[in-house]
Order: sequence, then C-alpha cells, then structure tokens
Amino acid sequence: MSIPQKKLSIGLFGFGVVGTGLYKVLQQTPSLNAEIKKVCIKHPEKKREAPETLFTVDPDILLNDESINVIVELIDDADAAYYIVSKALTSGKAVVSANKKMIAEHLPELLAIQKEYGTPFLYESACCASIPVIRNLEEYYDNDLLQGVSGIVNGSTNYILTRVAQDKLTFEEALLQAQIEGFAESNPALDVEGIDAVNKLSILLTHAYGIVAHPQEIVHSGIQNLQAHDAVFAKEKGFEIKLVAQAKKLEDGNVAAFVLPQFVDSTNQLYNVRNEYNGVVIESGLADKQFFYGKGAGSFPTASAVLSDLSALRYDYKYEYKKLHNKTAGNLTNDFFLRVYVSFEGLFQVPHERFERIEEWSSSEKKCHVIGVIKFSKLRDSQWWKKKGISVIVWPDAFVTDVVVKEPVEDFLAVV
Amino acid sequence: MSIPQKKLSIGLFGFGVVGTGLYKVLQQTPSLNAEIKKVCIKHPEKKREAPETLFTVDPDILLNDESINVIVELIDDADAAYYIVSKALTSGKAVVSANKKMIAEHLPELLAIQKEYGTPFLYESACCASIPVIRNLEEYYDNDLLQGVSGIVNGSTNYILTRVAQDKLTFEEALLQAQIEGFAESNPALDVEGIDAVNKLSILLTHAYGIVAHPQEIVHSGIQNLQAHDAVFAKEKGFEIKLVAQAKKLEDGNVAAFVLPQFVDSTNQLYNVRNEYNGVVIESGLADKQFFYGKGAGSFPTASAVLSDLSALRYDYKYEYKKLHNKTAGNLTNDFFLRVYVSFEGLFQVPHERFERIEEWSSSEKKCHVIGVIKFSKLRDSQWWKKKGISVIVWPDAFVTDVVVKEPVEDFLAVV
Repeated sequence: MSIPQKKLSIGLFGFGVVGTGLYKVLQQTPSLNAEIKKVCIKHPEKKREAPETLFTVDPDILLNDESINVIVELIDDADAAYYIVSKALTSGKAVVSANKKMIAEHLPELLAIQKEYGTPFLYESACCASIPVIRNLEEYYDNDLLQGVSGIVNGSTNYILTRVAQDKLTFEEALLQAQIEGFAESNPALDVEGIDAVNKLSILLTHAYGIVAHPQEIVHSGIQNLQAHDAVFAKEKGFEIKLVAQAKKLEDGNVAAFVLPQFVDSTNQLYNVRNEYNGVVIESGLADKQFFYGKGAGSFPTASAVLSDLSALRYDYKYEYKKLHNKTAGNLTNDFFLRVYVSFEGLFQVPHERFERIEEWSSSEKKCHVIGVIKFSKLRDSQWWKKKGISVIVWPDAFVTDVVVKEPVEDFLAVV
Repeated sequence: MSIPQKKLSIGLFGFGVVGTGLYKVLQQTPSLNAEIKKVCIKHPEKKREAPETLFTVDPDILLNDESINVIVELIDDADAAYYIVSKALTSGKAVVSANKKMIAEHLPELLAIQKEYGTPFLYESACCASIPVIRNLEEYYDNDLLQGVSGIVNGSTNYILTRVAQDKLTFEEALLQAQIEGFAESNPALDVEGIDAVNKLSILLTHAYGIVAHPQEIVHSGIQNLQAHDAVFAKEKGFEIKLVAQAKKLEDGNVAAFVLPQFVDSTNQLYNVRNEYNGVVIESGLADKQFFYGKGAGSFPTASAVLSDLSALRYDYKYEYKKLHNKTAGNLTNDFFLRVYVSFEGLFQVPHERFERIEEWSSSEKKCHVIGVIKFSKLRDSQWWKKKGISVIVWPDAFVTDVVVKEPVEDFLAVV
C-alpha cells in the first residue's frame, strides 16, 4: 500500500540563489513528484540557468494557470509578496513562502484567508531557515506545557557579535566584514535594528502560544547601540552578548515577549551559537530544555526548508493553528520585571526612577553602567533607552518576581 | 472556530516515576482533555499517590473497557508490553508506548497491525525521550534529501564516557558512579553493550529511511571493551569517545547503519553532548547539519514525550510511515569501507588481512593500536573484535571510498 501523494505543479516567484537551487534539486529528484512549471522574474535581461521558456515577468500568468497547484514565493518585496500570496490562496493554490516580513506584518489577514479558503500556507523557511521550529511548535509542543522559547534567529547580527567577541573588532568593523562575507545586506538596518528578529518572533508567538501580535507591538531593539565597553564587560564576566528573541509564559499564564541583546552565560545552550548559525531553546513543562541548532539563513538552508514544506504539501499538510483556535495561554503582557544592564557614556544621567531597584553601578568618566530591575511596561513606553550611546542588555535569568513597585517620584538621581 | 479535539480516556500500564508524573500532570492540566481512567499495576501492595480505586492488576479490565480509547504502556517487561500493545491496537484503542526494546523487536508485527486496523501507535519517548526525533524524521525530513542521522541515544553510556574523560575514572568506576547517580540500571548490560542504542537505531531507521531491520541485523557494540588507554589516546588527539548510533545514505542509495564507539572531534555537534544528555545530528541534502539536543532519559523527559504523543492523539495524529510505503532509499547494506582504530593489549596479533589498508600503527608491550580501513561486511561477519581486550573505535569522517579491495591472503602479519 502506498500513501497517495499529490503531484505538485509549481509556480515560482523569484529565481535568485534559493529559487535556482530549488529548481536544480527538483530536477534531480523526480521522486519528490514536484515540477516547476513557470517562474516569474523581475529582470528578464539576466542570464538564467534554465530554459528561457520557463520565465515570465507577468505574475498573473502563474496565478491564473489552473494547472499550477502550488505557488512558491521567494521575492524580496514584501508588498508584492502579499499580493501574490493572498491571490494564490484565495484562488485555491497552496503557497510556500520564505518572506518573514510579509508574513509577520499581514498575519491577521493571512489567517483570515486560510480560514475562509482552507488552502495550505507553509512558511517554515521564514524562521531559522533549516531549523524546523515552526513545525515543532505547531505539532509537538503542547501549548499548556510550553514554558518558553528563546532563540538566536538572525544570522547577520550573530555573525557580527561573534566577530566582536572573538576578533576584538569594533561593531562597525564587524558589520563591514559581515557585508563582505555576504552575511549582511548592503542596507543592514533590518537585521541590525532587530526588525528581522522581531518579525520572526511575531510568527513564533502565533505557533507557540496562539498570540497574533504585529511586530510593532513587540518591544525590540537590535545591536545598533552596543558599545565596545559592553563587549569588554561581557568578556570579563564570561558572558557572550547575543541578540535573543524570547517568549516566556509567566505565572499568571500571560506571555512576555521581546527582542533585546542579552548577556548569555555558558549554562545556556545559546552561548555556543556563533557566527551565522541560529539556535532555539524550547522549554517545556516536563522536558526541561530542548535545543535546536542549524543554519538559519543562506540559500541552501532556505531551499531546504522550502523543500520540506513542498514535501508536506504532497500529503496535504497544513498548519492548523491549534493554539490560536483552542487557546489556553494568555495574552501578550508588559506587566513583568526584568533585570537589565544599562550602559551609557560618561556624564550622562540615567534617571533613578527608571529602575525599581538598582543592584550595582559603576562609573568612570568614559563609561558607566547600572544593573537593576525595570518594570517592562515602563521600558516599553519610554524612549530614553533608544538613544545612541545607551545600551540595554538583558541580564541572565532576567525575570524577577520579588519587586515592590515604587510610586513614581520626581527626583532624578544622577548615578554618574 | 475551534478545532475538534478528542477527549482521551486513558488506561495506563505501569505506575512508576513516569506513570505517576503523567497522572499528576494530567490532573493539573484539564485543558489537555485527557483523564486516566484505570491503572494496571504489578505490585498492588505498594503505596501509590492516587486513589486505590484507580488500580487493578488485571490487564483485561483496561483492555476490555470500551470507554477507554487510549492505552499508555510504561512497563519494563517487553513481552507483556507486546501483548498489551497488540491487543489494544487490534481492539481499536490508540497506544502510546515508551518501550524501545519491544517496539524494535516487534516492528514488523506492529506495522502489520497498524496497517490492518488503522489505530494510531505513537512512541516518541522510545527514542531520545524528550527530543522529538521520530516526529521530525517522519514529518519533516524528506527521504530523498536525508543524508544521515547520527546520535548519542543512550544516556547511561554517555554519562559513563563523560566521567571517564572528565574525572579520569576507569570505566568500572564510572559505571559504578552512574549506578549510584541513577543513570544506569543495576543490570547495565542493555546500556553498556549497546543494545538499548541499537533498539533505538532500529526504530530511527524505519522513520528515517523506511528500513525495517531487527536490532540483531544491525552491527552494534557498546563501551564494554573500551580500555583506559583508549581514553588517554582520545584525550591526546583532542577527541571525545562517544557511543554513536549512526545511519548514513551511501552514494548508491543504500544505507549504512551501526552502533559503535566513535572518536568525535570538536567540529561535530555531538562532541559537546555530555553526561546523561542525548543529541542527534540530522544531515539533509541542502540544510547542512541540524542538531537536536535534550534530555534523553529519566522520568520527566519521558513523561513529556508521552504527553506530546497524547496531545497529538487528540487531533487523530498517527505515523503514516511514508518512507516505508513510498520507498525511495535503498536497503541496509554492509558493503562499505570504514576507517577505524583498533587497540589491543600487547603481544596480541591482529591479522593484517582484517584491514584493507593500514594507515598508522603503534605498539608497546602494554598497548598497541592500528588505524586502518576495514570492509564493513568483514567486520560484521567476524568475531575477533568482540573479544575482551580489543577495542574498535570509529575514526572521525570514517567513510572511505578510495579502497581497492584486496584478495584474501593467508599470511598473518603481526603488527606488534
């Protein structure tokens, strides 16, 4: 007895490195039972490694072709991608997409379309590329027992942080090297400012906790404000600085979530995630911590995740968003306390009232830092920590519960 | 819209630490929609942390109870477990089992029953406990693109190997410590001789490659023959010795599989898997290597995997054994060449003809070793390497393809 497999006839958008790789693999692997029928490209003048008749510049040729039952969307432009994906899904075509920005920003609409039309929409490659984190959160980690997810989900910033820590480069030099090595875009803001990471966290929150939150609702920062003295401090303490996307179920059932630089110590599996790699720690009720590690970006890991999604489509797999529909976790909350390190340049004043408790401070003319406990909602609602020259880095084991909230006071205490 | 969830009414076999933990979690988590209706135990005289009316010593009370729709089997006795599981499946009850020995030894029968009756049979906890390796191989890693799986799947032996490497204990001392710490059975042969690991490899082969092989068909050895001088050698070379269960797709599409001690270098993710932890590296076509890490044994990690299986049953999930039914990988083969290190006590002769090629040798009165290339089928068919005093340890990057097979010769060359 063999299990029925759908034959996939694919319309592909985008023929960059991922698309080209996918085309080659599907040609070499007839058992995958999938064929690329047409490819929509933007620049017909470019030389391509496939027959000319395969290509078109008109999206509707693919979208209106009834013999095409799967659209694979691998383009950069998030707006064009949303048009393509929503049109494909509403016309009954399954879709595989790698576009985290588009997915994170349009999640409510995409969920509504899937609910109405029932067409499968898979996007494993949008989070950590080759690491099957969405599929595992969706299928394996039951909501109630999932205590937390924390991950290094952006390869570019992790590469930069590794170069700073290992080669003692400045952040600027490391970014330049990342661009030379191809691990950062020529406009690196999406990566460096934590926007790519928060897009991924937004997607993960849906599959981990059934929470639909626009990336802009989630507190996030990147590595843009980190200073050389932060790297020196981390080294002295035996920490590594990582940009971590974290979600954690609190005692009241609500979920804390943010993307912030963190000091990670060697007991944390993320400590050893270096260079362009990604890693995710999933903490579940009884199982302690599980760690998933692999390449999180790049053409081959992305193509690999796309292939796994295609393979699943052959068996009519779709995300059921179980945790969204049978919701038992709470909502996204900012009502919790976090231990953070804040560093700033000399002669700058950090108001004492920003902290519920200050546990350590150090100051010199050149560099100052405070370690203390903040109320997260206050951080969320304020702008002081986003200024150039101020770094906020989450301390290991950052969640603090024994805090007596202070009344707001007006006295600004200079800690320098 | 909420997704329909089955209400699970559970008949539980075994009320040891895993069963007790499961009972408590299900009581505390009503949203799991699962209730333990009856528990079958062997020793009614023991004090239990649950109402007396919950227990029986008669398996048939559970198996014949039509209101029970799921059997969870958590007993030690593999024969009794097979009776319970097969009877439950044939009478239409879904089954969750953690019994690797029973599953590995009865895989063909269990597959036939599932095919005939269509009842779900899940056993994620049987391999690496909390690491969802079966589910990922079954659902995510497409057959054709799966290059290899290698894992540390037995926590007891890994704990012993860690103690030997880190604390310079002898193997005997480390085993004793493992028993004291509760990481090894009082009769440790199943672990130490690699039998538990090969049971797990047998199960993994089915989900990775659709290969059904009895554990006895798979070449396996444990750590029982390792000597102190092997540990010293490993340390000098910067290796760690690990007991690795490995499956690898060869160029001809057939699959090599074995459980043997291996020298693992620091470029391998398994290098950092220490103590009672498990880790699995999955190598897939384009995605490079993925690494999964977590607790592989113990009551909580096992209960956690059982819970995930129960949760999946609420949505009627079952293994489809896709790779078995739509088979594209080849068969288990012994027709390949492997680079191994063989050590033996002084004055012992290892026949030259065992090796296709000897690349390095070293001898003294006390300890000798050879590094060379063997034909795996010759190793499989011979007994010389199973003698006490001889260690065979697989070299890093062991698969060798540039070998000209020698004609058998009769001259035994002493390498000491």
